[in-house]
Amino acid sequence: MTADDTVPASRGRITITEIARQAGVSVPTVSRVVNGRSDVSPGTRARVEDLLRLHGYRKRPAAARTRAALLDLVFNDLDSPWAVEIIRGVEEIAHAAGVGTVVSAIHGRSGDAREWMRNLRARASDGVILVTSALEPTLHEQLRILGVPLVVVDPMGSPAVDTPTIGAANWAGGLAATEHLLSLGHRRIGLIAGPPRLLCSRARYDGYRAALEAAGLTVDETLVVPGDFRPESGFTGCTALLGLPEPPTAVFAASDQMALGAIEALRRRGLRAPEDMSVVGFDDLPEVRWSAPPLTTVRQPLADMGKLAARTVLSLARGERPDSPRVELGTELVVRSSTAPPRGAS
Amino acid sequence: MTADDTVPASRGRITITEIARQAGVSVPTVSRVVNGRSDVSPGTRARVEDLLRLHGYRKRPAAARTRAALLDLVFNDLDSPWAVEIIRGVEEIAHAAGVGTVVSAIHGRSGDAREWMRNLRARASDGVILVTSALEPTLHEQLRILGVPLVVVDPMGSPAVDTPTIGAANWAGGLAATEHLLSLGHRRIGLIAGPPRLLCSRARYDGYRAALEAAGLTVDETLVVPGDFRPESGFTGCTALLGLPEPPTAVFAASDQMALGAIEALRRRGLRAPEDMSVVGFDDLPEVRWSAPPLTTVRQPLADMGKLAARTVLSLARGERPDSPRVELGTELVVRSSTAPPRGAS
Repeated sequence: MTADDTVPASRGRITITEIARQAGVSVPTVSRVVNGRSDVSPGTRARVEDLLRLHGYRKRPAAARTRAALLDLVFNDLDSPWAVEIIRGVEEIAHAAGVGTVVSAIHGRSGDAREWMRNLRARASDGVILVTSALEPTLHEQLRILGVPLVVVDPMGSPAVDTPTIGAANWAGGLAATEHLLSLGHRRIGLIAGPPRLLCSRARYDGYRAALEAAGLTVDETLVVPGDFRPESGFTGCTALLGLPEPPTAVFAASDQMALGAIEALRRRGLRAPEDMSVVGFDDLPEVRWSAPPLTTVRQPLADMGKLAARTVLSLARGERPDSPRVELGTELVVRSSTAPPRGAS
Repeated sequence: MTADDTVPASRGRITITEIARQAGVSVPTVSRVVNGRSDVSPGTRARVEDLLRLHGYRKRPAAARTRAALLDLVFNDLDSPWAVEIIRGVEEIAHAAGVGTVVSAIHGRSGDAREWMRNLRARASDGVILVTSALEPTLHEQLRILGVPLVVVDPMGSPAVDTPTIGAANWAGGLAATEHLLSLGHRRIGLIAGPPRLLCSRARYDGYRAALEAAGLTVDETLVVPGDFRPESGFTGCTALLGLPEPPTAVFAASDQMALGAIEALRRRGLRAPEDMSVVGFDDLPEVRWSAPPLTTVRQPLADMGKLAARTVLSLARGERPDSPRVELGTELVVRSSTAPPRGAS
């Protein structure tokens, strides 16, 4: 029996031997749970995992590692043009550090998250960057037990307090977009909102409301329509707004893709932006500089967010602590040609 | 002395010991060259590399490996929305095989290709997929010596005969785009071409020419303007065509991004597609369904090309040979709203 076994375990310093003692199982059994092997009965696994969690057990990092060799960048789906912006930022920093960026998607593949975790372990990934994705809580716990650092970009809910998150100044962006429309003379301003489960959607909505209220207006809920950030929902949302007895003269779409859908809804009715309705987006994807008309939007620094996420996860892998667990990078209004004063304004 | 040393080396079966004897250096020195270490004099490295190349030496794959764990997907730049389409296809197949996809970019970083090769070796990548990228010839050779399989997607020049390549039916796509415009009644059809160093650009141009010639027309070189696949060049190219004494009534842009630039050039002059000029693109990026107007284009199966590249490189990693060294996946004309009969046509 070593000294470790007799010293009372303090949080985060408990040994596998002590966990085995408390669980009433052998040390190899605990080791199998820690390493995610399948040859453990469900009851034993649950009991051991509870103890690992309770004591905040973390696997000791390999001593010989001097630098990280791989990091994992995980998306729900690889189906958005902004994914490539984040990949570009992460890859730039990782590459400079001699670290490979493993890109994967987990959404829509039932049971695949567990498979992904198995692969992560097999390749001894040094850190994980998760983009607006929900890991099953048990996998989150597995990452913690493995001692693999995790950084979340643009979290969709309330993240665990000890997970660093990186986002954009969504509230300030929503405020700036709406203030821009107000400054052009618009008073009936619609909103095509993002999914309410995402924090970023809620922040953009609150910025919209704050701008209206600062101008002495209140939110007219009939002018707020739901969306899911995809172009189809911008099309549907704008079509609904155009069907109102008194449509808005301007709309803030909480994503560029929804703004493009809104412009197409106008076009299908023989209407145009900005002559018939001003449209502001959110993201500043590279291609909206070339939409017809070029889109006024809120620039979200996606590549910079990727860079910061990579820097943070690599510094966590070196055992450093981030300065702040939650960082928001600034957003910026980019005025192009899809916004103008309302028809009839002087 | 082992049997290996006395048997005359047949191509592809030569040993390090034999290379060392012929080069007049020690076995560890040859080993250092094979493993890309830097502690070898340039003269010795060149002599050993020449012998390795001459004898077609390939490093023996590790016997214990039962499946690939990582593959590398390499872009020149991660700045195009179509990159994410290819990543999505590669990742889907790699993920299903339990293989991680390491995404990286090498362009514009002087000396970084060598650094990238060092990282590739450190992470023991099982295969490389290169997307319209030029590896320095020495790195290409290094990959061969390491025995790392290589597949090229959409090659820019004449690839080495033993490198499998995957492309799209670019010639057939250029033909279909131009035939579509001819069938609408257009006779003066412009082309905004891609970079001539890329095979895919040359094939699209030849398809355009073949369609014109089949209709009894010839290529009017004043209607062919150069581009680089980016929107800016589509804008510039279309502006040049509009400045001609007799502008074309339709234009085939060899990429969607150039087509969007062309539409913006029309808009800046108060003109519209398709009323004033029909525009056809090439790629069918997801967002052009939502351009204003939705773009008629040639669908290139980018995700499927990624899938096939991943399948091919994984099968090479298992020691299998691909059925065909050069595969072209079919392209398809997608007619939307940016094309119409020329003004004044009956």
